[in-house]
Amino acid sequence: APGDRPSQAFDWFLIGLITLNIAAVVLETVPSIHDDFAAGFHVFEIVSVALFTVEYVLRIWVAPEHASFRQYGPVGSRLRYAVSFFALIDLLAILPFYLAFLLGLDLRVLRVLRLLRFLKLMRYSAAMMTMQRVVYDERRALVAALLIMLGLLIVASTGMYYAERHAQPERFGSIPAAMWWGLATLTTVGYGDIVPVTLVGKMIGGIVMLLGLGMFALPIGILATGFTQEVKRREFVVTRS
Amino acid sequence: APGDRPSQAFDWFLIGLITLNIAAVVLETVPSIHDDFAAGFHVFEIVSVALFTVEYVLRIWVAPEHASFRQYGPVGSRLRYAVSFFALIDLLAILPFYLAFLLGLDLRVLRVLRLLRFLKLMRYSAAMMTMQRVVYDERRALVAALLIMLGLLIVASTGMYYAERHAQPERFGSIPAAMWWGLATLTTVGYGDIVPVTLVGKMIGGIVMLLGLGMFALPIGILATGFTQEVKRREFVVTRS
Amino acid sequence: APGDRPSQAFDWFLIGLITLNIAAVVLETVPSIHDDFAAGFHVFEIVSVALFTVEYVLRIWVAPEHASFRQYGPVGSRLRYAVSFFALIDLLAILPFYLAFLLGLDLRVLRVLRLLRFLKLMRYSAAMMTMQRVVYDERRALVAALLIMLGLLIVASTGMYYAERHAQPERFGSIPAAMWWGLATLTTVGYGDIVPVTLVGKMIGGIVMLLGLGMFALPIGILATGFTQEVKRREFVVTRS
Amino acid sequence: APGDRPSQAFDWFLIGLITLNIAAVVLETVPSIHDDFAAGFHVFEIVSVALFTVEYVLRIWVAPEHASFRQYGPVGSRLRYAVSFFALIDLLAILPFYLAFLLGLDLRVLRVLRLLRFLKLMRYSAAMMTMQRVVYDERRALVAALLIMLGLLIVASTGMYYAERHAQPERFGSIPAAMWWGLATLTTVGYGDIVPVTLVGKMIGGIVMLLGLGMFALPIGILATGFTQEVKRREFVVTRS
Repeated sequence: APGDRPSQAFDWFLIGLITLNIAAVVLETVPSIHDDFAAGFHVFEIVSVALFTVEYVLRIWVAPEHASFRQYGPVGSRLRYAVSFFALIDLLAILPFYLAFLLGLDLRVLRVLRLLRFLKLMRYSAAMMTMQRVVYDERRALVAALLIMLGLLIVASTGMYYAERHAQPERFGSIPAAMWWGLATLTTVGYGDIVPVTLVGKMIGGIVMLLGLGMFALPIGILATGFTQEVKRREFVVTRS
Repeated sequence: APGDRPSQAFDWFLIGLITLNIAAVVLETVPSIHDDFAAGFHVFEIVSVALFTVEYVLRIWVAPEHASFRQYGPVGSRLRYAVSFFALIDLLAILPFYLAFLLGLDLRVLRVLRLLRFLKLMRYSAAMMTMQRVVYDERRALVAALLIMLGLLIVASTGMYYAERHAQPERFGSIPAAMWWGLATLTTVGYGDIVPVTLVGKMIGGIVMLLGLGMFALPIGILATGFTQEVKRREFVVTRS
Repeated sequence: APGDRPSQAFDWFLIGLITLNIAAVVLETVPSIHDDFAAGFHVFEIVSVALFTVEYVLRIWVAPEHASFRQYGPVGSRLRYAVSFFALIDLLAILPFYLAFLLGLDLRVLRVLRLLRFLKLMRYSAAMMTMQRVVYDERRALVAALLIMLGLLIVASTGMYYAERHAQPERFGSIPAAMWWGLATLTTVGYGDIVPVTLVGKMIGGIVMLLGLGMFALPIGILATGFTQEVKRREFVVTRS
Repeated sequence: APGDRPSQAFDWFLIGLITLNIAAVVLETVPSIHDDFAAGFHVFEIVSVALFTVEYVLRIWVAPEHASFRQYGPVGSRLRYAVSFFALIDLLAILPFYLAFLLGLDLRVLRVLRLLRFLKLMRYSAAMMTMQRVVYDERRALVAALLIMLGLLIVASTGMYYAERHAQPERFGSIPAAMWWGLATLTTVGYGDIVPVTLVGKMIGGIVMLLGLGMFALPIGILATGFTQEVKRREFVVTRS
């Protein structure tokens, strides 16, 4: 049953295990750490897969006890749970290991797929679901903001290409090269590895910076409005019930 | 008729064609790509203009069938459509090619004008129109924010010019030179190609950074409020009808 | 009378004159421009002050015709106007010139004071007044956000000082030196002239970057809420009357 | 009594003293300043601790006069006040000095703990409390935003590691090394000390920049909504009473 003591301990144990798995994938790439603990990482991976498999089987097993599945009988409820969003994520977290074991696949690809275990964390954050819904509800506006951004990027990069290509041919030698500068400037990241040096280039650069400021405002305005509406909707539901 | 199967396929075909056109303009400037596919780019340009011309003629042709133009008769409705916003954009997308062909103009200028085809994408995103309306409704506030920004920029650059001109005369040798630093800092782009080195310069720089943070807030606050109002207005309309 | 044809032309002429004045102050510092047009800048300054003086005298002169001053009589209304916000700004825009002329002051200081003419533009943007009111209404929240920011800055800089002072003594040799890095990071400007190199320093740096992201949210959230309330208040007034 | 003349002067004196204490901790680390004023800093520290001790004892002493503690009697009210949030902060501000004096601890650690005195400023800003409440109310959403950010960071860094590890083995030699780049890019700080150089790396970098833009929007949207609700709640309370 959800909410009681052992169930909560089980949840926290799994959150810890997932976190350790992600940390292992990340740390394994550090040469010095990999050389010292290669065997340890291997054992940890096998133990993790075993535990995630037990978790997966248990969740399939208890599926008929869920209120929303009860009506479908012992087999139907388990099948219905098995094709649900979270069950598929749980399967994706362990399947690559077994496939690699059976088919003798390269372990290098496997390592990246282990990062999919991060998705298992979604089960434990209701707020993450709310955010996902806000992003989904506002997807048209976000795509439009992205389009405006791309339009600006192309215009800015084309202008900068014509302004700087003679002064810095190795840095602004083509529009795609200028787009690297354009993205870094419009998003206000500003690495500074490529900067305009001509007067016209700096004037274009200044305008692009100001437009970048405005471009920040678009997705933020969209999402802030989305959050406000989501909150209002929830309050409306509460008031009604 | 809009919304049916062939009409949607037609829309998607045009969106793809426009995207390929933009990609061609961008990629053509990469020397290695241009040298290998010069003929291909030329053929693609001619085919594109032909297709856009067919699209333009067809749209003029079917104009009398639009509900909003029907009352003006076969000639009047077509003329009225021809001077509408989207028809002018469609004309702008193909006119430079024909003008260059007839007048024997330089093809270099033509290339940049081809980017105007990007505007044809606006027809397919209703959200982009909403954003445009929000920006238009809040134009006074945005201009005021720009004015405040320019005021800050001039004060910051003047201060930095007096603080750094002896320490770094080749970088902060005039107020316009200091304005390049000022814009990069106030917009939080921060290239790092020009940074203050004196104590007074760093103190001014620190204050400018904090003000830059506040300046981000102005357009965002304006546009977020604009979006919220736009949404409310639309809901109001829905509730009424 | 405001709103009629000549009055609008007068306004636009003044906006243009103020803009040219600011441009003159900025461009005068470019050595090559200053050397070529020194006499021109001098004549332009004198003509500008003459025109601004005429504007000031005229505005004082017509003060009794303003609805809000009419009741105070010809002298009282002019005195009351003379101590109003905009009249003082108009005075500040010309006073330094006359003082320098009378007292024989250094012209260098005068140049900076000429930037005060920028404030004359405030008269022409109602939205700028709205923004000022929003910032004023939210001043307590903005000061609190600044305090939180300063607290974070001091903690981050102290941590970075202890992490990096042995690895980079010439860059992180004291907490004030580390604060230059801290400000550039917390405001996401990120010049890159000073960056941590030790493992502990990079970990502290990563946390500071994430906190900087959150710190952006504070003033934006405050001002966005302020704008929303200002708009609501205005609508309330409109609905009532 | 709060609000009267001497009480306000007492508050401003303490705010000044706290500010000077923070400034002393920061400036003491500058070698040239420390060498010149070592004795002065020592005296100032002793005087400050003495004054803060007097403040602490006085506040404990007058605790029974507070309306909310009156019912507990002279001893009970003082004990209850002593374990309140602000009393504990006041204790933390002086305790390290006495412990170091009694136990003969290292003065280096003491210096950092002196920064805790900054927290004493919280007593004087009601807006800071509001912000704290907003952050607390939205903690679930902020944690979820942090989780999404970490997920993006790990995916971005893993991708960049595979794209750049052969081209720049000394900069992108492991996923943790790539995470330093990833954080600087996702938060739009963009130091520029580590940037991708391969084509695939730059394409991944461009996508990460755009996602970074979106990530800014999440905490801002959350906090802006939080502020709006807090303001509404306060207005509701005002309307009711």
